[in-house]
Parts: sequence; C-alpha cells; structure tokens
Amino acid sequence: MDNLRLDRARAILRERDLDALLVTSGTNRRYLTGFTAEDHAPDELSAVALVAHDRALLFASATNLPWAAAEALPGIEARESARPWTTTIADTINGEGWRHVGIEDETTTVAVYNRLRERLGDGVALVPVGGAVDALRAAKGVDEVALVEEALRLTDRAFVAAEGRIAAGMTERQAANIVREELRACGSEGEAFPTIVASGPNAAKPHHAPGDRVIQEGEPVIIDMGAVYQGYCGDLTRTVWFGQPSEQLVTIYETVAAAQAIALAKAAPGVTGRELDDSVRAFFAARELDRFFVHSLGHGLGLRIHEAPSAGPASSDTLEPGHVVTIEPGLYIPDWGGVRIEDVVLIEAKGARNLTSAPKHSV
Amino acid sequence: MDNLRLDRARAILRERDLDALLVTSGTNRRYLTGFTAEDHAPDELSAVALVAHDRALLFASATNLPWAAAEALPGIEARESARPWTTTIADTINGEGWRHVGIEDETTTVAVYNRLRERLGDGVALVPVGGAVDALRAAKGVDEVALVEEALRLTDRAFVAAEGRIAAGMTERQAANIVREELRACGSEGEAFPTIVASGPNAAKPHHAPGDRVIQEGEPVIIDMGAVYQGYCGDLTRTVWFGQPSEQLVTIYETVAAAQAIALAKAAPGVTGRELDDSVRAFFAARELDRFFVHSLGHGLGLRIHEAPSAGPASSDTLEPGHVVTIEPGLYIPDWGGVRIEDVVLIEAKGARNLTSAPKHSV
Repeated sequence: MDNLRLDRARAILRERDLDALLVTSGTNRRYLTGFTAEDHAPDELSAVALVAHDRALLFASATNLPWAAAEALPGIEARESARPWTTTIADTINGEGWRHVGIEDETTTVAVYNRLRERLGDGVALVPVGGAVDALRAAKGVDEVALVEEALRLTDRAFVAAEGRIAAGMTERQAANIVREELRACGSEGEAFPTIVASGPNAAKPHHAPGDRVIQEGEPVIIDMGAVYQGYCGDLTRTVWFGQPSEQLVTIYETVAAAQAIALAKAAPGVTGRELDDSVRAFFAARELDRFFVHSLGHGLGLRIHEAPSAGPASSDTLEPGHVVTIEPGLYIPDWGGVRIEDVVLIEAKGARNLTSAPKHSV
Repeated sequence: MDNLRLDRARAILRERDLDALLVTSGTNRRYLTGFTAEDHAPDELSAVALVAHDRALLFASATNLPWAAAEALPGIEARESARPWTTTIADTINGEGWRHVGIEDETTTVAVYNRLRERLGDGVALVPVGGAVDALRAAKGVDEVALVEEALRLTDRAFVAAEGRIAAGMTERQAANIVREELRACGSEGEAFPTIVASGPNAAKPHHAPGDRVIQEGEPVIIDMGAVYQGYCGDLTRTVWFGQPSEQLVTIYETVAAAQAIALAKAAPGVTGRELDDSVRAFFAARELDRFFVHSLGHGLGLRIHEAPSAGPASSDTLEPGHVVTIEPGLYIPDWGGVRIEDVVLIEAKGARNLTSAPKHSV
C-alpha cells in the first residue's frame, strides 16, 4: 500500500521528466510519508519531503525528527533539516545533482521559491506541477476507503447521539457543543471542520457559524458535522426540527430530499461532476427554485474535507471508482431559512455505494 | 482601534512606495478586516484583501460575501470575487491603475503569483513585503491585550477544572479529552493548538500527541493547552504528578521552575529574545543540563499561537511594550520524561506582567 503511493508519485516524475519532486502540501506529505504532524500555517511547515526516483526523503526539525522517523512509511528516510529548511533542500538537490525538480506551486510560497532559487543557482529548473499529487489522492485505495468509512461511522453515531440531546430552547452554540462532545465521545480525533448548527433564518446561510440564537419549534435546523479518524474526514448534514414543522419546511425538505435521491441514483463512473450537479440544478430549475441552490452539489473528501473530485457547475472532473464524494443539495431562502441534506458515496465499478447511514427525517 | 490597524498597514505602503498591498495571510486578513472566516488550506482561501491608500477592499465568494460584509470593520468594503479570485484582484488592480502592489510572499503561493502575473500584464510590479503585516501584530493594542487576557483566563480556569478530574490510571487520551471538555465548558472557541498530555517517558517529547499510555503515580505529566477567545490564543503548560513524585522529578521540576523565575524577572523592553533565551540556557548549562533544553524559550502569541516576537537562540527580535510572549523552559530526559512550565507575560513600559494565574505545583 505505502509503496504504491510512492510509485504513483514517481509516475509524476517520469511523465514530466523530473529528477525529484518537492512536497510542500501538508496533506500530500502525510499521504506520501505517513508523518501525521500538521502545519501551523503555510509559512510554518512541520516538515517537507523530496521524492526522487530511487529514494524519498522527509525533512523535519531536530525537535520533530524522532516523531517523523517513527511514523515514516516504508521507503521514506527521515532526515534533519536546518533553518530555514530551504537551505537543506537546496543543498540536497545540488548535492544529488538533480537538475529538474518539480514544485507544488499551489502550496509553495513565493518566499520559499525565491530562497530556493537563490541558493540553487542557475543549473536547476523548478517546474510547477500544480495539483498533481492532490490528484493522486482522489481515487482512494482500499485501505483509505476503510478509514473514510470509519470516519463516517463515527460521524453518524455522534449525530444520532447529539440529535437525542439537542432540543428547542437551546442556543445554536450549545447545540454545536453537544455535537463536539459526541464526536469526541465516539472516538473522533476532532472536528473535520467547524461544526455548523444553523437555525431558522440562519439556516439560509450555508456556512453559518453557530451563535446565540435560540432554536425554536417548527423551524429548520441544519446540522453539518464531521468526525476525523486517522486523519480521514467524515462529513454529514441533516436538517432537523422540533415539534411540528411549518408547511413551507415540509415542502422545501421534500424537494431537497427528492433532489438528493436523483443525484444518489445518478452517481457512477464516467459521470462528470458537472453532470451530477446539473441533475439536481435542473430538478430545482423545473420548480423555479434553482436560484436558492447557491453552492456546488458536492466535493471529494479524504485526508482533506475538500479535495478532488468536485461536483459543481464548473467541475472538470469525471467520477472514477475509488472516488469518495459528498452529495449535498440545499435550498436557502433568505429571511426564512434553508434545508441541506448530505450523504457521502463511494464510486464503485458500477454505480455508487452510499456510505452514510445516519437517519433522515421523514415528513 | 480598527482604523488604527489600517493606518499602520498604510504606513507599509508609504515606506515601500506601494499603491496597494494584497493580503493573502488569513491571520492578517482577520487582523485588518475583522472577517473571521478561516482558510481551509493555503490553496483554499476564504477571502483576500487589497489595502490601498484611500480604501481597503475585502473580496469573498458570493457565498461568503454577506458574512464578510457583516463582519467588516469600519473602513473595509466587502466585494464579491470571481473564481479564481486572482482574476478579480488583477482586474481591480488594473482598473484602479495601481502600478506597485505589495504581496505577502510568505503566504502567496507560486500558483497565485503566476496567475496574477499573467493577467496583470507588464505594467504592474509585484513587490514582496515579507512579514511586514505580521510584524504589526507583534505589539498588541489595548483591545487585543484584553482579548489575550480573557483567552488566558479561560485557559487557566479550564486547567484547574481539568486537573481536578485527571488522575493516575487514565490514559493520556482520556486526560486530553477532559482538557478539551473543560476548555469548551469555560467558553473557549476551541483549542488554540492540539492539547498535549505527555506522561512518563512520553514527557521527554516536547510535542507528544496524547495516546493510549496509562498515567502512573509519581511520574511527570506535561499538560500543554490553550483556549481561544474571539480568535485570540491562550497557552499554558503545567507539569503535574499524582501521588509521591520521584526524587528525579523533584530535582528536575525545581530546576525548571528556577529557570523560569529567572526569565520572568528578566523580561522587559529592550531585552532581546536571544538574551531572554540565553538567561535560561546559561542557567541550565551551569548544571550541565542545557542539552536537555531542546526548544526555544518562548514565542509571541495573539491571533496565532506562534507569532512575533520569538525568544530563542536564533531570535533577532527585541522586546517592546505590547508584546505578549510565552516563557516556557523545559528539560527533556530521554527514556525518563520531562518537565515544562509555561506562563505568558505582557511586556509593559517597565518590565513585564505575568498574565498567567494557573497554580504551579510546589514540591
């Protein structure tokens, strides 16, 4: 499994005629090397990796080196880096005589680039490879699917436990704290993203941050949450209510649920992310509701909560076996509220398997 | 207060003869604009800002725009950005006729730089300003000091509550979950960084991740934790034990405590971060223990858990009034364990004020 990941990364070297690839994305570093340390910030990396044809080096500070060495996957050699780490990387590249070195330009900063450029001299070309390593992560291996499934199981379990404790009369913030407690209690390593609890009119904002609003009976409450298991993210949205739902809530809920069913049935290898999104957008358009569907239908997830493939109007991705993607239609009516329902599917050889088991309200 | 921050950012424009400054650091964006959204990743920003002499623009996606507009500080104008946002930024720069535009090269990626470069044409210079805006954040305003103090109060309170619940026989992971629960219960917005609970030999690793090891009586347990209040970070380390401490633990603890007292007394405006670190390192060296002090003495904190000024062997910073800095000496003895004690001080006109009130063990 581990060598497979390195093998796939080395295919990038061969395709692009590179001697080595500098990995500055923290997620790709974890994926390729196994080192779980997170980066404090884009300008404060825990480690960087250099993948060459015949070796793969993981550079960490003296403080982090023992940790890095302990976690390094087979085929990965942990080494100490100086400060700034660009010095060690440039000297390694020059020492090895590498002349064409790929860089992940989506995460390499201009400052790092300039420091490398200065120390490398003119004999070395730094070649942007964009999201080439990120693209490797889209199709999950069986080991990764198992980890995502576990993250989703923890998420579903925490949702059920939290829903049983949340009630009208609580604030959104209190409800979100219950979700977090239940995520921890289920064994999650944390939150895959900041938990959303959006009630009443706040549910019209897809990314609402839970606040002091008190949840009322009969109104929609969107709960969007995700567990983390061995670094892999879960993602789940349910729209719930307490007491009798309003008539509008019933109508909107049923429409979103029907839209989701369409997309769940359509997801399969060969379908593009755009087509999948279109299937829902057209359903809403036929009801003159498409202007209330203000985000994309879904996104891949894995070591990151958002990764390839995307399923939106601008997506250029095509679904493949091993892709793991959210299907989360929503309608957001300003001043009234909103409904979103999200499951996660695994694209298989034929069709897709729904990995989410959290119950949905029936209205 | 808010205009003061923009004023200080505009001084950077004047000093460097710039028409505008592109803010790609998420922390600096929050500092200057008030928009609290966090970035998913270096290549997935929630918003970017352009600060010019006569206006300051905050660009967010259509989805995030209402949120950005609601939170924008006085003097900040929220606008919608297209995808990719570099298109909107370049068109704005060209439309305004700005010719010298600063970029935060420590956070601007090579991909963003190349996209901007391509769309801007040759008439516009992109000038790296390094960490110029980060440097503004080092000296806190009175409003910010109040927020850090509150974050530290929450941290101290959560520590006291957690310490009362943690006991020998628990795993590190269980203990860390108690810390997280108490942080939330005290009103913290989350963890300023992943909580550390490191027991026995694990305490020899400064950045140990809490695991399944069961805490024993008599051994050191390092607890390193931080609350978050309105985005501002707390930071606190205490080394505790249950039952009778071993003789070595008493000796090491007293040595670290004495070293910390030296640094706490020395911290004052005009002292360099290096001198502060030296004061502790020399104390340890006189006892032939300096090789066990494997990290820097301290770091600034605020909207980020690590920011200027630094207090370490390689620091080039000089302490100033308004700086908020940790003082956290430690000794890490391989295979045995370690001790770290951390307080946070505010540098005042004369000397420093200890903002931490969590009790320390006396041995």
